[in-house]
Amino acid sequence: MTIRPVELSKAYRLVQLGATTMLSAKHHDDADVMAAAWVGLGGPNKVIAYLGTQSYTRRLVEKSGYFVVHIPTAQQMETVLYVGGHSKSTMPDKLGNVPLFYQDGCDIPLVAGSAGYLLCKVIPNPQQEQQFDSFMGEIVSAWADSRVFDGRHWLLDEAPDELRTVHYVAGGQFYAMGQGTKFDHGPGQD
Amino acid sequence: MTIRPVELSKAYRLVQLGATTMLSAKHHDDADVMAAAWVGLGGPNKVIAYLGTQSYTRRLVEKSGYFVVHIPTAQQMETVLYVGGHSKSTMPDKLGNVPLFYQDGCDIPLVAGSAGYLLCKVIPNPQQEQQFDSFMGEIVSAWADSRVFDGRHWLLDEAPDELRTVHYVAGGQFYAMGQGTKFDHGPGQD
Repeated sequence: MTIRPVELSKAYRLVQLGATTMLSAKHHDDADVMAAAWVGLGGPNKVIAYLGTQSYTRRLVEKSGYFVVHIPTAQQMETVLYVGGHSKSTMPDKLGNVPLFYQDGCDIPLVAGSAGYLLCKVIPNPQQEQQFDSFMGEIVSAWADSRVFDGRHWLLDEAPDELRTVHYVAGGQFYAMGQGTKFDHGPGQD
Repeated sequence: MTIRPVELSKAYRLVQLGATTMLSAKHHDDADVMAAAWVGLGGPNKVIAYLGTQSYTRRLVEKSGYFVVHIPTAQQMETVLYVGGHSKSTMPDKLGNVPLFYQDGCDIPLVAGSAGYLLCKVIPNPQQEQQFDSFMGEIVSAWADSRVFDGRHWLLDEAPDELRTVHYVAGGQFYAMGQGTKFDHGPGQD
């Protein structure tokens, strides 16, 4: 198994690359996974996610107070389109063919094959949630595929291409992350 | 000149790819440019930007109510590091060597060489701004380099490599956006 815990102080780097995300949530026995392109960092250790009112997953987030941000990879593009294109409201068995697994300390299912996973606890803010459909979460645990993120740094140039992050445009168009360049100076601890 | 206006309904696609950004602002004759890795979409036509309290640019945003999000390119990596590594507070001539230009309808300077530019009007929210350093802006105008964004779609595979978007990790490490893949289905209008 190549999924390993990520130091909390470095977990933001999983999101900062700007990939399209998938987002899972669970309330009692009811779990769902959605595609979410509008998820970013809202401060140190904080994620901001836009969850439209029509989203079934949003209701699970509202009830449970938790969600998991997934950083999908090139091998998951069809899965991203699938979970983004179907709603559990009209398709109760939506997750039937989606490969799920669990990590210790997280009772929300994770979709196998992503580069990273961030368990977030909602910082409640009814005004932002209702007026702007904007949910802020504090990152409380994180895991990554150690072949592509070593716990502190991305290894995109060393990892297999199918582990590159994917960035969605619209109408079925993705870009995968490309080549790295390293300068000997720059903000942020190495 | 290859900088052309972008249809407002498609401007979000400039941000959605998840690039590191630069952000410019101006109050009276005082302008500044910062690097901002924590900028994302906060809803249809809305940007959310994290602006730390130490930022000189933030004060210009607070006074003027506007900012411009830049989507930098591979040819600008040194510029991103430069504006991110220096503060106008201690270096009044910070922008002396940064190539700036203006677009009609925008009195805030733009840094030459970016893939896209989004003029945003702050949607005031003192609680979010003070408690979380989080600023929401409505996209009111946008422009892009037509060699890499045709007004509706990214053209990363056709454009010169130096126009690829760049995504910052930390410690001088960037990744440039890579190859595209197009499925014949997927959320969002083509």
